[in-house]
Amino acid sequence: MDSHIAPVDMKKAYRLLNHGPTVLVSGRYDGVDDVMAAAWSCALDFSPPKLTVVLDKATRTRALIEQTGTFVIQVPTVAQLQLTHDVGTVSLASDPDKLQRSAVKLFDIDGYDLPFVAGCSAWLACKVIPEPHIQQTYDLFIGEVVGAWADTRVFENGHWNFERADPALRSLHYIAGGQFYAIGEAMSAVVDPAVNA
Amino acid sequence: MDSHIAPVDMKKAYRLLNHGPTVLVSGRYDGVDDVMAAAWSCALDFSPPKLTVVLDKATRTRALIEQTGTFVIQVPTVAQLQLTHDVGTVSLASDPDKLQRSAVKLFDIDGYDLPFVAGCSAWLACKVIPEPHIQQTYDLFIGEVVGAWADTRVFENGHWNFERADPALRSLHYIAGGQFYAIGEAMSAVVDPAVNA
Repeated sequence: MDSHIAPVDMKKAYRLLNHGPTVLVSGRYDGVDDVMAAAWSCALDFSPPKLTVVLDKATRTRALIEQTGTFVIQVPTVAQLQLTHDVGTVSLASDPDKLQRSAVKLFDIDGYDLPFVAGCSAWLACKVIPEPHIQQTYDLFIGEVVGAWADTRVFENGHWNFERADPALRSLHYIAGGQFYAIGEAMSAVVDPAVNA
Repeated sequence: MDSHIAPVDMKKAYRLLNHGPTVLVSGRYDGVDDVMAAAWSCALDFSPPKLTVVLDKATRTRALIEQTGTFVIQVPTVAQLQLTHDVGTVSLASDPDKLQRSAVKLFDIDGYDLPFVAGCSAWLACKVIPEPHIQQTYDLFIGEVVGAWADTRVFENGHWNFERADPALRSLHYIAGGQFYAIGEAMSAVVDPAVNA
């Protein structure tokens, strides 16, 4: 595992997704790994941390996840713009070399039989909370986060540091047709201690 | 209605949320309007457009929405940073002057008995698709988008123009503790026509 990767306090794991980045979803079953991009993933709860992700029935990644009930949500970086686009447009079903062709490199984390995508800024290992009705009707999956890690060069002590980190580590926010935005400027609201009491 | 506000093609309405902005949720029932902030809202489907939003049981806005089954999701701007923070931290239950104190101005759109927040960049009028189990268990609501509008100075012809618009119109992406990021730089992946065929 890369020396920059460190576990994230589970109480702060929701912050890895709170700003709405486009993510990569990965799964593993029976010797097959797949990775797809998803703009439609969102935090759902603080503690234990939960998230939602929309997984189209046509995706091979969903088929893998349905076999094991486990998956990884990871936050790709500006350096992975093309990779993110490519794994979101090519299917493993039509191109068995998808991951290699998309320049995806995988790594392992001890204790998790899941494929983690190297070069991302954050990783959330998840367990599907089975909700068959919404999975079938809306392609909507609920995951409980069972492990969280981040690249300490851009997320440390429970906070993103996009404003100080290498710009190549910024998160991606997909629109359509290959068009993305990177995350931008940091800004703070005035916090009234009385209001938050 | 502000002269800059124009309807958005329903097939492109998902793009208003695709980049994961923090949103404002508003509801109206029996003469009461409320507005709250939500970082946990996400696109769910293209056509008809659907979305998800997490509404805590403690919020007054949820109580209004449960009465009518309708609500508005709107995308606040950098100019509304403090407003967004304030409506997300104060409850109408404890402060009846919440909206006034947060400098929220509402406007109407013909045909919708809902409070729209002035100064946002996009508005999605929604109808709750009742899913009582996930509403109760996860505070997760599914909405079908029944009307969509945007400020043409920042979203036109189905595309965001953050890179050319007034920076005050950028979307906000909340982390925690009053800390936000604005959306940043536009970037494009190389789109292979053969791959997308």
